[in-house]
Amino acid sequence: MEQRVSLVTLGVTDLGRARAFYEGLGWATGAAPADDVVFFQTGGMVVALWGRGQLAEDSAVADGGGWGGVTLAHNVRSPAEVDAVIEEARAAGGTVLREGAATFWGGYSGVFADPDGHPWEVAHNPHWTIGDDGSIRLPVA
Amino acid sequence: MEQRVSLVTLGVTDLGRARAFYEGLGWATGAAPADDVVFFQTGGMVVALWGRGQLAEDSAVADGGGWGGVTLAHNVRSPAEVDAVIEEARAAGGTVLREGAATFWGGYSGVFADPDGHPWEVAHNPHWTIGDDGSIRLPVA
Repeated sequence: MEQRVSLVTLGVTDLGRARAFYEGLGWATGAAPADDVVFFQTGGMVVALWGRGQLAEDSAVADGGGWGGVTLAHNVRSPAEVDAVIEEARAAGGTVLREGAATFWGGYSGVFADPDGHPWEVAHNPHWTIGDDGSIRLPVA
Repeated sequence: MEQRVSLVTLGVTDLGRARAFYEGLGWATGAAPADDVVFFQTGGMVVALWGRGQLAEDSAVADGGGWGGVTLAHNVRSPAEVDAVIEEARAAGGTVLREGAATFWGGYSGVFADPDGHPWEVAHNPHWTIGDDGSIRLPVA
């Protein structure tokens, strides 16, 4: 199995609301208005929005509701940019779960949840490199 | 907010077991044996393994246990490669939730869960392009 992720699918209860939230953050999709799944090209991978019940059935898992042990992160180039993205998320209808602040690991981050409760950490990690295309490079050990 | 994901963190109950599973799939990390978080470079992003309780606290969410509406996918270049990766996952200690089979959307996929129950769909989607580096490109609408 190659060391990569192709797609992250977020289960949603109201696809129109979820789509509008991510579009409100400035994301663009080629999905048609009536499509029942919305794909966003995110660098060399894809983020999808799909009905949570359909995703549970397709994934052959039981859905107990709530959070399930997966958190996404969006890294940016400065603490000020963390605060700016947190404000964008709030303005787009997200819920700020943790305001931007210094972290125990020497960075700066905040957390918002999308309308379906999926948390996103917005982080500045001074130890990691962000390319011009937004790609992340871990330091070589 | 730029249209990208930097990091996907999977909450785990036994970091050594989780790390061994992904290493068993052929993934490599620069983490030291005693590190309490394990990072894998996955293309231009990162997959992390971290204690689920720590991740819940850091994400400012309540953890009800179980699945929470997020499924990852790993796309490959043929149906036969889907079956091969599903077998690799089974051999590494994963649980096969759905064997490889034709899908309603015209592709071929199966699903395995890692030792913490995080589902991965392994898929061949003939409508999407996979680059030599494993990156995915959606068709232009």
